[in-house]
Amino acid sequence: MSGSLNEIARREGISVEKIKARLSRGSLVILKNPVRDISPVAIGEGVKTKVNANIGASPDKFSIDEELKKAEVAIDAGTDTIMDLTVGPGINELRKAILKHTNVPFGTVPVYQAFSEDKRDMNINSILSVIEKQCKDGVDFMTIHSGITLDIIKHLKGARLIPITSRGGSLIASWMAENNMENPLYEHFDDILEILKEYGVAISLGDAMRPAATCDATDIPQIQELITLGGLNKIAKKKGVQVIIEGPGHVPLDQIEMNVKLQKKICDNAPFYVLGPLVTDIALGYDHISSAIGGAVAAMHGADFLCCVTPSEHLGLPSISDVKTGVIASRIAAHAADMVKLKDTEIDYEMSVARKNLKWKRMFELGIDRDIGKIHADLCGKEECTMCGEYCALKSARKHFE
Amino acid sequence: MSGSLNEIARREGISVEKIKARLSRGSLVILKNPVRDISPVAIGEGVKTKVNANIGASPDKFSIDEELKKAEVAIDAGTDTIMDLTVGPGINELRKAILKHTNVPFGTVPVYQAFSEDKRDMNINSILSVIEKQCKDGVDFMTIHSGITLDIIKHLKGARLIPITSRGGSLIASWMAENNMENPLYEHFDDILEILKEYGVAISLGDAMRPAATCDATDIPQIQELITLGGLNKIAKKKGVQVIIEGPGHVPLDQIEMNVKLQKKICDNAPFYVLGPLVTDIALGYDHISSAIGGAVAAMHGADFLCCVTPSEHLGLPSISDVKTGVIASRIAAHAADMVKLKDTEIDYEMSVARKNLKWKRMFELGIDRDIGKIHADLCGKEECTMCGEYCALKSARKHFE
Repeated sequence: MSGSLNEIARREGISVEKIKARLSRGSLVILKNPVRDISPVAIGEGVKTKVNANIGASPDKFSIDEELKKAEVAIDAGTDTIMDLTVGPGINELRKAILKHTNVPFGTVPVYQAFSEDKRDMNINSILSVIEKQCKDGVDFMTIHSGITLDIIKHLKGARLIPITSRGGSLIASWMAENNMENPLYEHFDDILEILKEYGVAISLGDAMRPAATCDATDIPQIQELITLGGLNKIAKKKGVQVIIEGPGHVPLDQIEMNVKLQKKICDNAPFYVLGPLVTDIALGYDHISSAIGGAVAAMHGADFLCCVTPSEHLGLPSISDVKTGVIASRIAAHAADMVKLKDTEIDYEMSVARKNLKWKRMFELGIDRDIGKIHADLCGKEECTMCGEYCALKSARKHFE
Repeated sequence: MSGSLNEIARREGISVEKIKARLSRGSLVILKNPVRDISPVAIGEGVKTKVNANIGASPDKFSIDEELKKAEVAIDAGTDTIMDLTVGPGINELRKAILKHTNVPFGTVPVYQAFSEDKRDMNINSILSVIEKQCKDGVDFMTIHSGITLDIIKHLKGARLIPITSRGGSLIASWMAENNMENPLYEHFDDILEILKEYGVAISLGDAMRPAATCDATDIPQIQELITLGGLNKIAKKKGVQVIIEGPGHVPLDQIEMNVKLQKKICDNAPFYVLGPLVTDIALGYDHISSAIGGAVAAMHGADFLCCVTPSEHLGLPSISDVKTGVIASRIAAHAADMVKLKDTEIDYEMSVARKNLKWKRMFELGIDRDIGKIHADLCGKEECTMCGEYCALKSARKHFE
């Protein structure tokens, strides 16, 4: 662990003491299953905003090779972590393949596997057994939807436009409704923590009540669940399990700051992991842009971890190029926020120096996507671009004002 | 004009009285040259945030057909106005072609033509003659860089990393430096207003000191020029010429609100037209995303008019598809802001109803880009998408919680 701390301190530019203090307060987590030989990733207070890329297949579309390719492209594009959201057959093989072929922290949603294998017979024993198997395999963090309770779902009918969009949340809530039983992930939270603690795996407390429409944002079910998550956070921390809190979702631009600050208060500054937020419901085909807007604002106000949204959100599983676009969009949002949150502006300054001097090769090296330099290689060595040609403002300004 | 007012009142959902009051205060402008037979477009207080698409060629790359195609694609994608930024030969022909073939307000930067024709011999008479010619042709609004003065440029050396990125600004500033003379657009501001007043054309006061790097944002040259623009705004309003104020540029996320509020104060709530703002300098190839983040935040805080930034910003002239992507990105930003500013959320609600009911055809109709429905036509009639397949949360939630 102390090797990890030094590595993180160096990479993030903060002292080991600060990291230790924040880990003990729970405002920072370090993702790394001890069985995996990967670089640890720190998420939370005072470190760079991190980005997660989702991969994973559905019963309608399953190919290990394609999902591995998505993981590779996501890592090349700079994602900090990967989650596999596969439902249906093939979960075990895909997980093992990704753990073998990738070197970033890897997350799962164990209830997807429990449900894929046991369907309606899913029970706490099958869930605990999946969690333990995945911990042993080397998974670094797991989304567990322990915050949705009978008390919330019994008031859900008519409470919002779209009751549930969280897939894990809907699996659990439907099971609860069918069996008229409390959420096993809530009732047996201690047993889950026991396993996670043993294997050094972090919990990402899922938000089953994530709003699926901007009109449902910041409503009673969402905040009720957040309060439950706040309580579970205290229990997990006491147990020595690292906690991330998951958050919305579809949220209008002016409610994002409030959502982040409320989560930070209720959850004792635990790292906040947001999906989006999407600032409008109508950006079909362009939800990576809607999400970059929301993610930048969320991260500026304190969100720590952005889940990529791809252009195919709301339309189907992403293609390989969609995954790349999603990662780049989220990284732009994360960096725009870090420029404010961490005064992380050195690279922008270097880029601007290169731009002023029309040094294309250097611009391509510093750009968010290294592939842009391949597409525009013809610019290298030129003193102007087709935008202005001989009327380049940078060139004429250089002559007169430097 | 009263036909225009009624049309705008209907389209924007506000009363004619409110429009009149805001026009007289100068917090709203209506773009429409009386000689053109187009729908007028209102920009400013209490109306929807508008989007402008730039087209135009440079000496390195000129094709009227391609620029017309860009204009057509931009209009299809929902731009509210178009500006031609051509420098070099062909400006007259392209302007006439666009005025003939398009039906949205059209803007120009007359100094580009004056400089293209007269180069270093450019003088106030050639500029006034271009302005009048363009007014007669039917141009609806013009960017005029009257705010940069000798007092600003004599302190510019060493004041910021990149002295000037505004092309119009650099043409004027270089001319001033070479001739050691005051800005003719400043000195002869009254003569310019005289012509614009006569032809009913709006002035868009250009920001020659627009920051080209986030490290230069909100600096002394930028704010000095803004103060000058505030004074010119008063003069133009007194003269009866409608005014828009142009703004940054590259601006870190936490300085955007301040920039908008400062502009509104200094310029008596004149409509604010922003280029971006880009929230990071490193999003090379993806500046439409950086710009959507900044534009959404700017518009939420009061910016009225967003100039599209395309993926090819900082790399070259945009392709036709880049223009479309830029318009869609800006429209997402504008709408996300209008959801907050104007409570303009009906379409999001309708989209969410369609989404909840898995009505794909309706979702495609309501989406920000109608072409998405063509790409995903196979979804129509389906009860699930490849994202979750049979594990669709919306479907299972519908069964239990509605």
